[in-house]
Amino acid sequence: MAVYTDITEGELEAFLKNYDVGQLLSYKGIAEGSENSNFLLHTASGAYILTLYEKRVDAADLPFFLGLMDHLARKGINCPLPVHRRDGAVIGKIAGRPAALITFLEGMWMRRPTVTHCREVGKALAGMHLAVADFPLSRPNALSVEGWRKLWDGARPRADEVEPGLVAEVDADFAELSARWPSDLPSGVIHADLFPDNVFFLGDRLSGVIDFYFACNDLYAYDLATCLNAWCFEKDHAFNLTKGTALLAGYQSVRPLTAAEKDALPMLARGSALRFMLTRLYDWLTIPDGALVQKRDPFEYIRRLRFQRQIRSASEYGLGEA
Amino acid sequence: MAVYTDITEGELEAFLKNYDVGQLLSYKGIAEGSENSNFLLHTASGAYILTLYEKRVDAADLPFFLGLMDHLARKGINCPLPVHRRDGAVIGKIAGRPAALITFLEGMWMRRPTVTHCREVGKALAGMHLAVADFPLSRPNALSVEGWRKLWDGARPRADEVEPGLVAEVDADFAELSARWPSDLPSGVIHADLFPDNVFFLGDRLSGVIDFYFACNDLYAYDLATCLNAWCFEKDHAFNLTKGTALLAGYQSVRPLTAAEKDALPMLARGSALRFMLTRLYDWLTIPDGALVQKRDPFEYIRRLRFQRQIRSASEYGLGEA
Repeated sequence: MAVYTDITEGELEAFLKNYDVGQLLSYKGIAEGSENSNFLLHTASGAYILTLYEKRVDAADLPFFLGLMDHLARKGINCPLPVHRRDGAVIGKIAGRPAALITFLEGMWMRRPTVTHCREVGKALAGMHLAVADFPLSRPNALSVEGWRKLWDGARPRADEVEPGLVAEVDADFAELSARWPSDLPSGVIHADLFPDNVFFLGDRLSGVIDFYFACNDLYAYDLATCLNAWCFEKDHAFNLTKGTALLAGYQSVRPLTAAEKDALPMLARGSALRFMLTRLYDWLTIPDGALVQKRDPFEYIRRLRFQRQIRSASEYGLGEA
Repeated sequence: MAVYTDITEGELEAFLKNYDVGQLLSYKGIAEGSENSNFLLHTASGAYILTLYEKRVDAADLPFFLGLMDHLARKGINCPLPVHRRDGAVIGKIAGRPAALITFLEGMWMRRPTVTHCREVGKALAGMHLAVADFPLSRPNALSVEGWRKLWDGARPRADEVEPGLVAEVDADFAELSARWPSDLPSGVIHADLFPDNVFFLGDRLSGVIDFYFACNDLYAYDLATCLNAWCFEKDHAFNLTKGTALLAGYQSVRPLTAAEKDALPMLARGSALRFMLTRLYDWLTIPDGALVQKRDPFEYIRRLRFQRQIRSASEYGLGEA
């Protein structure tokens, strides 16, 4: 939630000479995205987002991320289309950083998603899972079980300061996850961070999915489990069964889950809650107060994790037949 | 340079029901303006800026600020036009804060203004000084000599920590300013903060003047003196005589200075340098590190102040005949 790098109009005009987007009319640093610097541009041909990739993003991953957006947009998924430069490339450089220009999507992210929004995000997620079938690139998920273990090694010594008893709880989670984490489910490229702030709506219509910078190859059902955690809980941390039912029905209306995926959903949702709890806990303990990076309270996901440990069957999320 | 207050799409849609601007399409918090929260909105009828006034702005001053923009825009000055609500008001409320919607101006602020930009800003400033002649409201300048003294009282005990010798230098400035500060020069409403980040250009054409939240009644020539400090020095703190000449010639091409104004210009420029040095010094000493408010280094204006103390005649700025 910050602009890390400012750019001059001269730098920007030189950068845009490589693109066929018409005269630059304005650019504003926007307070969105926690990993990169983002600018909203108006040019003679419309509105664009310029992203400067800061050091938390590996430049070697950019062809995967931008190629994925390009692939999805061309398949009709509502996501930003990377603008190609005159030489065909989609990655340029400005202010010493790799940078890309993507189309601007109108729409607002829902601070308070409704049941309808949950259904629509389920449909869109399934649509993406179908659309990536022929995407040729792949990227391992650095934040799967082994990655979580590294985060936990860093956070564990001070975890009980944040929440008494957390060390014992999470050690037990790791023991169960190591024994029971599924590996033989349908997999492909997943979004891996489909939180409400990454999905735009115009009224009830989903107008855009953004921020593919955690996308990677992993289990499709794990992506859906992340959405259960991200979309179907209320501010008081209570699970909303109506929203869960809508999300899962929306997903299955486009891509029905296999029996094995349904069985695995509680374990996947528990793992996903652990993953987001761990990154938040790690940042909470390591980022100095007052830094520009926004720190999210790990407590929300400690609560999610405790909820997910109790779930025995996906029917408790509202899963019906496809 | 921060968004202090986030708003939900529900709050914003309710707020916009009072305005005739068409359907909301998107809104983004933008990283501009150091005093308020600003959002760039797209609606079916175009682009707008929504400003939420945070506590550093006195709500009682808003009719003056917004009335001034309205007055200037209707006189043909390139500045934002406050959008009137259906009930005629220009000030609404959102997220518990007073808020206004103003038209969005295309253009970029110049991180490195050229001689041409200096000439154009001079012309625009003079145009504003003519256009306010029949503006009916007034607002005293809280940051004139007496206001500076209060800032200095707060900063003085620790000023020598920031720059050794500063206490003696500034005490001498106050002695001279008290004896020689002019009061009988042409006066009216001034912008009072016309720095490069408050002026937009499209190429060489000035497309917008923004941020009237320091506007007040004071000497016109003091406004011009502030522009000399803000526009005509290079990054190495050297005064650029060509830029000074262009700024002053641009101003005088629209509103010739009186002989008394010309004589007073060095003292006004010294006072203006002191004013900006003091607010920066005060913030430097009082705002905690890591706060969201951007702190500007006072040293730039310590250098300006030292320069201005040496000036004996406005011809040293490049002032020619009108």
